[in-house]
Amino acid sequence: MESLVDFAFDDSTQRLTEATREFIAEVILSVESDLVGDLHSISNAARLDLHHAAAVRGLLAPTAPLEWGGLGLDMRRQAPVLEEAGYSVVGPLAMNCAAPDEGNMHLLARVASAEQKERFLVPLVRGETRSCFAMTEPLPGAGSDPRALMTSAARVSGGWRINGRKWFITGAKTADFVICVARTKGSPGDAGGASMFLVPRDAPGMAITRNIETLDSAMLGGHSEVSFEDCFVPDDSVLGEVHEGFAAAQERLEPARLTHCMRWLGAARRARDIALGHSINREVFGSRLADLGMVQQMLADMEIEITASRTLVLRAAWELDVEGHAPQTTAITKVFVSEAVDRVIDRAVQICGAIGISNDLQLAQLYREVRPFRIYDGPSEAHRWVIAKRMVKSHRTLA
Amino acid sequence: MESLVDFAFDDSTQRLTEATREFIAEVILSVESDLVGDLHSISNAARLDLHHAAAVRGLLAPTAPLEWGGLGLDMRRQAPVLEEAGYSVVGPLAMNCAAPDEGNMHLLARVASAEQKERFLVPLVRGETRSCFAMTEPLPGAGSDPRALMTSAARVSGGWRINGRKWFITGAKTADFVICVARTKGSPGDAGGASMFLVPRDAPGMAITRNIETLDSAMLGGHSEVSFEDCFVPDDSVLGEVHEGFAAAQERLEPARLTHCMRWLGAARRARDIALGHSINREVFGSRLADLGMVQQMLADMEIEITASRTLVLRAAWELDVEGHAPQTTAITKVFVSEAVDRVIDRAVQICGAIGISNDLQLAQLYREVRPFRIYDGPSEAHRWVIAKRMVKSHRTLA
Amino acid sequence: MESLVDFAFDDSTQRLTEATREFIAEVILSVESDLVGDLHSISNAARLDLHHAAAVRGLLAPTAPLEWGGLGLDMRRQAPVLEEAGYSVVGPLAMNCAAPDEGNMHLLARVASAEQKERFLVPLVRGETRSCFAMTEPLPGAGSDPRALMTSAARVSGGWRINGRKWFITGAKTADFVICVARTKGSPGDAGGASMFLVPRDAPGMAITRNIETLDSAMLGGHSEVSFEDCFVPDDSVLGEVHEGFAAAQERLEPARLTHCMRWLGAARRARDIALGHSINREVFGSRLADLGMVQQMLADMEIEITASRTLVLRAAWELDVEGHAPQTTAITKVFVSEAVDRVIDRAVQICGAIGISNDLQLAQLYREVRPFRIYDGPSEAHRWVIAKRMVKSHRTLA
Amino acid sequence: MESLVDFAFDDSTQRLTEATREFIAEVILSVESDLVGDLHSISNAARLDLHHAAAVRGLLAPTAPLEWGGLGLDMRRQAPVLEEAGYSVVGPLAMNCAAPDEGNMHLLARVASAEQKERFLVPLVRGETRSCFAMTEPLPGAGSDPRALMTSAARVSGGWRINGRKWFITGAKTADFVICVARTKGSPGDAGGASMFLVPRDAPGMAITRNIETLDSAMLGGHSEVSFEDCFVPDDSVLGEVHEGFAAAQERLEPARLTHCMRWLGAARRARDIALGHSINREVFGSRLADLGMVQQMLADMEIEITASRTLVLRAAWELDVEGHAPQTTAITKVFVSEAVDRVIDRAVQICGAIGISNDLQLAQLYREVRPFRIYDGPSEAHRWVIAKRMVKSHRTLA
Repeated sequence: MESLVDFAFDDSTQRLTEATREFIAEVILSVESDLVGDLHSISNAARLDLHHAAAVRGLLAPTAPLEWGGLGLDMRRQAPVLEEAGYSVVGPLAMNCAAPDEGNMHLLARVASAEQKERFLVPLVRGETRSCFAMTEPLPGAGSDPRALMTSAARVSGGWRINGRKWFITGAKTADFVICVARTKGSPGDAGGASMFLVPRDAPGMAITRNIETLDSAMLGGHSEVSFEDCFVPDDSVLGEVHEGFAAAQERLEPARLTHCMRWLGAARRARDIALGHSINREVFGSRLADLGMVQQMLADMEIEITASRTLVLRAAWELDVEGHAPQTTAITKVFVSEAVDRVIDRAVQICGAIGISNDLQLAQLYREVRPFRIYDGPSEAHRWVIAKRMVKSHRTLA
Repeated sequence: MESLVDFAFDDSTQRLTEATREFIAEVILSVESDLVGDLHSISNAARLDLHHAAAVRGLLAPTAPLEWGGLGLDMRRQAPVLEEAGYSVVGPLAMNCAAPDEGNMHLLARVASAEQKERFLVPLVRGETRSCFAMTEPLPGAGSDPRALMTSAARVSGGWRINGRKWFITGAKTADFVICVARTKGSPGDAGGASMFLVPRDAPGMAITRNIETLDSAMLGGHSEVSFEDCFVPDDSVLGEVHEGFAAAQERLEPARLTHCMRWLGAARRARDIALGHSINREVFGSRLADLGMVQQMLADMEIEITASRTLVLRAAWELDVEGHAPQTTAITKVFVSEAVDRVIDRAVQICGAIGISNDLQLAQLYREVRPFRIYDGPSEAHRWVIAKRMVKSHRTLA
Repeated sequence: MESLVDFAFDDSTQRLTEATREFIAEVILSVESDLVGDLHSISNAARLDLHHAAAVRGLLAPTAPLEWGGLGLDMRRQAPVLEEAGYSVVGPLAMNCAAPDEGNMHLLARVASAEQKERFLVPLVRGETRSCFAMTEPLPGAGSDPRALMTSAARVSGGWRINGRKWFITGAKTADFVICVARTKGSPGDAGGASMFLVPRDAPGMAITRNIETLDSAMLGGHSEVSFEDCFVPDDSVLGEVHEGFAAAQERLEPARLTHCMRWLGAARRARDIALGHSINREVFGSRLADLGMVQQMLADMEIEITASRTLVLRAAWELDVEGHAPQTTAITKVFVSEAVDRVIDRAVQICGAIGISNDLQLAQLYREVRPFRIYDGPSEAHRWVIAKRMVKSHRTLA
Repeated sequence: MESLVDFAFDDSTQRLTEATREFIAEVILSVESDLVGDLHSISNAARLDLHHAAAVRGLLAPTAPLEWGGLGLDMRRQAPVLEEAGYSVVGPLAMNCAAPDEGNMHLLARVASAEQKERFLVPLVRGETRSCFAMTEPLPGAGSDPRALMTSAARVSGGWRINGRKWFITGAKTADFVICVARTKGSPGDAGGASMFLVPRDAPGMAITRNIETLDSAMLGGHSEVSFEDCFVPDDSVLGEVHEGFAAAQERLEPARLTHCMRWLGAARRARDIALGHSINREVFGSRLADLGMVQQMLADMEIEITASRTLVLRAAWELDVEGHAPQTTAITKVFVSEAVDRVIDRAVQICGAIGISNDLQLAQLYREVRPFRIYDGPSEAHRWVIAKRMVKSHRTLA
């Protein structure tokens, strides 16, 4: 049968999507309020309980490959499942498809050696361990511009010696191992020459020097500064090819951008549902809020932006599944969705008024949680810059 | 094989899309500048020449059913073809898939009798005749609110007598027949009771009373006021069921909204290409325009909005193909695309500066052409109102 | 000398403005970081220390009348002084011109009896006491629509008995007395019939039933629910005329809206300065951030919106000073400034990137603090509704 | 008396403002519809009739100095008068305060010699002659970046020989003399070295080579390309100092920006009045348009942006009056007002629906007229760039 534009999912994905929705509604929403505001420091036991509840329903690690213990969903199939998971900020954590572990599983599955997979990937998929990805450095180091990478790894007998400083490393505090990107060739500003290293949490010379307080509070472990001072790692710690770390990081980045979008889309839907319910149940000036034109405008704009976001995510997911790469489409999607989600939640807050900015509803938290999404994994401006450069490159002058 | 989200097209649609692109580039762009600004009053001979050029390449009437002489594309397949056609404002006219004829073909194919199809549809598909759709009335008549319909058709011996006044009837001046919506039951404000009539241009009592000057100038025949004074039409002029005109008009509306989006998306792409080319070829302050951050931001935003619009159109087209109806999704798509296209063209003008507001480029015209799109086929506000009402209706209160 | 448009200030206001700037820079910024994030619960001693520091420099209670111990500034003169104070979220508290006390001083000065002024106003101006204003009720009570007022005060021997429930009462937890608005005539929905009562914190029957956690954290005492259960107050507790509470509350509202704008404008300027400094000191992709076009666009938009906000505030202040009332202009100003300040701070966060969402800078807090400003003192939508109604009322049909 | 923020006008300005309002209402609005759409080519006789009508009421040349025959208003006093004049696109032309003559009068009054004033300024103020300002060149010549100036004037015996090409020269077709900016020193890209020349329309070697069709149509004479081929002008044609043309052009630019804002603000008010009247008189879905929330939102946003624009204009005008220069404030005002006016008119179109895009109302024309305002006198992006650079320059690092 020939290919033709289609938006339907196969039965098993539909079942999984529905099962995720039920899991969130029946299990997660009831525990959410106890955990929310405290996700930076949820206990290991509580996390394992959540994993167990997800595993019982067959919902653990949906994005990880089948052969390594996950549900093996491709990007398209991840879209509806991660959106349902993201309906609660606790959902992705419970199902072990939250950042940064989810992206790290993807990376390990692609570039790790067989031994590394057994040692690092398998327990990570099972939720027995946690990981983090240490790329970002204080300016003028690696950030929007990865080539600015300053942390270095020097060849020494039997391994490498890492020196440098990383920050905004999400999950470092709770990570059992760190994937550290360090320069093994060239100087800050050079386009290549990075390598990736698997560094166990107790590696001498690596230390968490600070937990950074931030606007958001739903990432397990929060965000930390990590220092490497003559931190030695043996040869088998190299993840992927030496000097090819930038390309490998890119492997991680495109799908990771997209899974962020999927999860946050769930948060946007949550906000819409809260605001919609509120607008139906409250009266002001003798009318239901939901019958006032300005509220209807906000409701409609929420729906428009959620629908547009969801179709863009599917478009990018399809391209990633089929082509393996989709740098322009994932960049477009990341910019659009991160900004749309922000507006959706802002409107939800506005519709709910005073109660919208209180913790009585989840909106005040969501308002805090989504703002960083326009910055991490590349600020909107960096993506727009790259999008425009690609446009110029591909432009053929009109006759 | 089970269904799964897909964005690819079958080979024949890809070939047709490519053929349309070539037709526009090779044939239409070279004659466009002679016609542009004058499309309200292009001669019949010139129009038939364009049709012939399209027919030679197998590109005439892509949206009309195969059995009635068209190319028989479903909504999804129409999307890329009409986008290519819309790359020039002359393209859809040349290929006989411009409004309002294209929507009228769709309507006739769905609800006309066999005799009506032979008499009205077949020559329309061939481009031998032109048509118009007379629904809108001066306020307080039918407009955003169709139920306000005031034009009436009274039962008389052997037929109906129509009285009323219509305005902003696109193409009336050049139409060989008018599809007139008139009330056959009830009073203005009632939800039902409309019927549709096929009125030949020489029907006594029907007159074009005024050509309305408007911001746009690319619709053949322009926009007119049409009056019906005791205009008699025989029984076989009724199109579809008596009293069921609102439902039938709705049949026309959903796909017509979407084909508008497809065509205007082509115009947006044209604007982007012009601005992109300009930004690459011009220098200011010692830099290429395309290398300035604020220009890059506008370029990227064009690309983001074009991509989002295109995916939304496909989403709605798929739903229409599969479900037969897609009122919420076509409304969402119409609002988003009409507003996005406007912004895309506005940015193109801004990037090109003084030359952007001159007729040296096509942007000044496009700027005028697309503005009405946020109003016709329902202003954005009317769609947002309906979108919000449907959201409220489908909301189930959260636990 | 005839009047003519002027934007200059007299010498003494300029000196006071400069003195405030120095006070914030020299005293407040150095203690701010210890207090920030904790303003909901700053100790009384710490607050009195701040007042003392302000008083020493002649900066205490700038908005209160001279005769009652304040600096007696009119609205225009308040504008630059409160903007400087607002440069730190601690500034207005230190100078005893923060909400809600500042508005309450204004109200007491206008409508309180001589005895009430001695007892309530004088110590409030000195900073010896704190107050709150209890108007807002849970829906369907008084909120955007004050007429929905449900809390009632019944005439009893020697006084009044108040029953009802208030929420989002800022500063209730730390208030020595509460100004409670209650209905003394008519039913919820009626346009008149409210009265205001001065209720001491230890009045039997009044209780703080809950502290409401919210997005913001810079209002001393936070926001609370307050219940009145057969709360008796004697006759001399009535503030202003019986049944005229709505009009009196309006007296408070217009200047209070405006002083909010003044203070938040200082916050916007702070955010701009932080982002500007950051953009000058950081490099990315080989350029200073401040030299990148997209950053320059954000910087310029900050400056444009700050300047427009400041001029609008002055316009409204002048009208209030001269006319006594400025309902349309203060509504316009409140909507514009509250939304502009939000955008300014959002851009500052974006420019600073990851560090912008951390507590290393003050931006993450400001981002949280200003969001409620689009809701309290009337959400933007309620103001827009009233603005439009006034436009319709004052419209004379064009010839 | 000490200075203090004031928004009132002296009596004579109030009278002049009122007289202008009456002139527009009583005289101009009735002839406007005959002229509109044709202002590019209004006859000289018709223009002189309009001037006469204005002169009879004492309203001719309000911006020109008293000693040269004008009303001698300073910038602040010009604001309300030019806003009233701009209520009709014909108003400023009638009162001889339209671009480009108005800016040229300002320039001549500042830098022309006594003889030049007698010969060029006096008849221009009287409306006996028309002028144009020839600065802009096709890229890569002078535009957003004046330093790119390519047109040159070479010293020859007894005068100068000008060579070069200008475009988008407004009013060239109807101008009796051209103020031409040409390079007398240095090369394109150099910061200085320009001079200005007064070139009579019949100067040999100067020719209008093309009239450029544009989106707008309300500038007398339209916009033209002008070529200089060995065009000789005698020594006394130099306007101002040799080599100091850039600085002198800047003298013209700041007030010219602001008078544009004043006039277009009148157009925005006109659009608001049309839309407001329409929304009061039309019903849809059983409600007045003016009672629908989404329409109220658009109405309120019009009012907010008009008010903010007007206060910004006054702020900049005051600064220009007092300081002589206000580069940052006029740039801020130009960006804000040009974009706000565009949005105001766009909303007016939207409120009026189909009739809004027809020539039945003036909105379709206004929609076309105001778009170029975001480009001419410097596109928004160029102004934002300069605004940001000034911010960086004036920033003192925070302690």
